[in-house]
Amino acid sequence: MPNTKTAIILLAEGAEEMEFVIAADVLRRAGVSVTVAGVAGAEPVKCSREVKIVPDKSLKDVKKESFDVVILPGGLEGSRHLSDSTDVGEILKKQEQNDKLIAAICAAPTALKFHKICLGKKLTSYPAMKCPMEEGNHYTYLEEKVVIDGNLITSRGPGTAFDFALAIVEKLFDKETASNVAKPMLLTYE
Amino acid sequence: MPNTKTAIILLAEGAEEMEFVIAADVLRRAGVSVTVAGVAGAEPVKCSREVKIVPDKSLKDVKKESFDVVILPGGLEGSRHLSDSTDVGEILKKQEQNDKLIAAICAAPTALKFHKICLGKKLTSYPAMKCPMEEGNHYTYLEEKVVIDGNLITSRGPGTAFDFALAIVEKLFDKETASNVAKPMLLTYE
Repeated sequence: MPNTKTAIILLAEGAEEMEFVIAADVLRRAGVSVTVAGVAGAEPVKCSREVKIVPDKSLKDVKKESFDVVILPGGLEGSRHLSDSTDVGEILKKQEQNDKLIAAICAAPTALKFHKICLGKKLTSYPAMKCPMEEGNHYTYLEEKVVIDGNLITSRGPGTAFDFALAIVEKLFDKETASNVAKPMLLTYE
Repeated sequence: MPNTKTAIILLAEGAEEMEFVIAADVLRRAGVSVTVAGVAGAEPVKCSREVKIVPDKSLKDVKKESFDVVILPGGLEGSRHLSDSTDVGEILKKQEQNDKLIAAICAAPTALKFHKICLGKKLTSYPAMKCPMEEGNHYTYLEEKVVIDGNLITSRGPGTAFDFALAIVEKLFDKETASNVAKPMLLTYE
């Protein structure tokens, strides 16, 4: 499948499991080849509410590969690990330099700020992260479910995770594809 | 914590991972002690969109314990495995005999029918399962997001999974608790 779209989801200990799994599942429903990359290795990752996920690969082993989108699920502790990881910083910088899509939800935009990614762009985050995200005036903060500014897609929390995932699908394909993925999940996407 | 509520989620190969993880996460946010029980054992379970989950326990090892609610996530293949498992049949029959809560979403109500559980009750399911669920007139089928009839809670698919999980929380505690769990997820529950 030469035109298959590819995604990598960066999964760290303490990630919000609903935000992770909704992104992975919805993108796979859209036909995207999704790699679940363990930030600390390929061992099972304990998420924020103790659901244990087995990554497909260790981030170290795939960070030099090319992906159409790099996705950061939220979770407070998970987002701290995304900030602490130099591998995450590397893959985000490469993605931005190559003008490719980055998507972050909930607390994960704080990791973008930490790694100085997408400076100057409009974005959103989990409401409690508004102040830290606004500090230093590196971004224009919007209180919308999903904010798209060029190659950056951000969103707010578990309750907006379907909108976030479907916005990524629309950006990779088109609105009709996103709408067609939404319907059998009993959602609408307009 | 003598009054901690307890839940068991029956996780089978091919389960819909969003329906599984939303139930587990939302109930843990509500303070419920949730056991993720692998129907085929304690090994990682590959879900419908290839997300791999490590169960907390094997169903065989916990099926004799008592739980306030038994939860069945959907997924077509996962629901077939729930039907095929005599352990699942046993735990459901015990739950019904003890007048305790059973919750099933998406295709999983077909497993209730297979095991002859909650006959005569009102329920719903994934829309495509309406015909098989109506066959034989064992249930009254309703096309609502969530149907509650006594100790049976059913729901329709990924897009209703938050409503389903919050309805379980309300049934175990009260509406205020469900509403308090919904808010930090950026959802409303009324």
